[in-house]
Amino acid sequence: MHFTSEQRLDEGVLEREFTLGEIPGFLWTPASASASAPAPLILLGHPTLGLGKMYPRLVARARHAAADGFATATIELPGSGDRPRLAVVDQARTDLRRALQAGEPVGDEIIDALILPLVDQAVPEWQSALDALLSLPEVGGPVGYSGGVISIGIRLAVVEPRIAAAGLFAGSFVPRAMFEEARQVTIPLHVLLQWDDEGNDRQAALDLFDAFGSEEKCLNANMGGHTGVPQSAGDAAAQFFTRHLK
Amino acid sequence: MHFTSEQRLDEGVLEREFTLGEIPGFLWTPASASASAPAPLILLGHPTLGLGKMYPRLVARARHAAADGFATATIELPGSGDRPRLAVVDQARTDLRRALQAGEPVGDEIIDALILPLVDQAVPEWQSALDALLSLPEVGGPVGYSGGVISIGIRLAVVEPRIAAAGLFAGSFVPRAMFEEARQVTIPLHVLLQWDDEGNDRQAALDLFDAFGSEEKCLNANMGGHTGVPQSAGDAAAQFFTRHLK
Repeated sequence: MHFTSEQRLDEGVLEREFTLGEIPGFLWTPASASASAPAPLILLGHPTLGLGKMYPRLVARARHAAADGFATATIELPGSGDRPRLAVVDQARTDLRRALQAGEPVGDEIIDALILPLVDQAVPEWQSALDALLSLPEVGGPVGYSGGVISIGIRLAVVEPRIAAAGLFAGSFVPRAMFEEARQVTIPLHVLLQWDDEGNDRQAALDLFDAFGSEEKCLNANMGGHTGVPQSAGDAAAQFFTRHLK
Repeated sequence: MHFTSEQRLDEGVLEREFTLGEIPGFLWTPASASASAPAPLILLGHPTLGLGKMYPRLVARARHAAADGFATATIELPGSGDRPRLAVVDQARTDLRRALQAGEPVGDEIIDALILPLVDQAVPEWQSALDALLSLPEVGGPVGYSGGVISIGIRLAVVEPRIAAAGLFAGSFVPRAMFEEARQVTIPLHVLLQWDDEGNDRQAALDLFDAFGSEEKCLNANMGGHTGVPQSAGDAAAQFFTRHLK
């Protein structure tokens, strides 16, 4: 991990850009974080729109988390931003758009091609980022994962024992294979669902919540459309991480 | 309303028993409540087990609410505790038990007979209690309704304009007719659902949440069985009332 720039944001939050091999990323640490008092880390997931486009929302989440004493970090997803495209995912996205425009049902093969290659490539990258981030003296465990493509969160929750709690956003397509993986998740989960998100299959989201193997899981469903998560739901997610990571 | 006894609980909360005609009830007010600073009121709903049996849980809710600055009050339900039985409801309860023991589906006519007479009689009583409670100088509006038989909460939310927000517990049978009333509810709602409550029809609870006409509604679903609502869900409900009543 190489830091390529750093700046201090208003509230004393230190923002550092880094590269991890070819992968760009951000790390935000609260002013309180130090080698003697490392800040617990939340990995900030995000959709496949690229870090540049997502930056305003990511930095807002980072500021809130820093106010609660958390370090946060994120990396660019495979095929997004300036990273090489993933041909199979691009093709699936084209097929998806065509199906939606034609009013046809979205077939399993489209969802699989859209999500599974992304999960397969992204998850080991987030694990490498975790190795590098946890080697910093001012960043510590336990680690949370928050938001973004829900299938990446599911896979990470299954394969990465350093992740102790996950806040997931039921807002993207989920391949059938991920339901089986969901049964293997045992860490505490806080799942956000936008009830009136027309682009989202609500029943699939409810089935997925039901499938999670975790003894402690909370579904928090609200109105406001895909991007209209209310402030109170953000607060509830923040309280979830404070309960489990502090 | 006649006060029949009063005692001060440890935290300075004043507990008063009262009768409203033949109906017994409780009022709890925080030490801070006064004529110059009346406490906003939350009506505490409860199941049909009788106030005596429910007292420990009710007083725990009252103490928490008082710590947040709320007055709380509750009255005995028709047919419960020492009040005259409701023959039609008792018969429906017998029919319900028989159906459940036989593993038969619970018919609409049983649910209607179990719930609708209770709602019809209870709701005007809660409104009379509200008249009396709001006439006290140390109790003020806006008013919330919390928990208990969900159909009573729905009807109150529709017919009683003084109720500004409701926290409902999706844990009891709901007659089909109440789904129509749910569409007429427009106040902010916070709905608790115990996801693994075997005695509850989860799909009916989700359909009911969908039916509510409120622009602001939140579903908070957790594990732990019918009586195992986690502390975090109680905290979230308390925050909901603080957001809307203060």
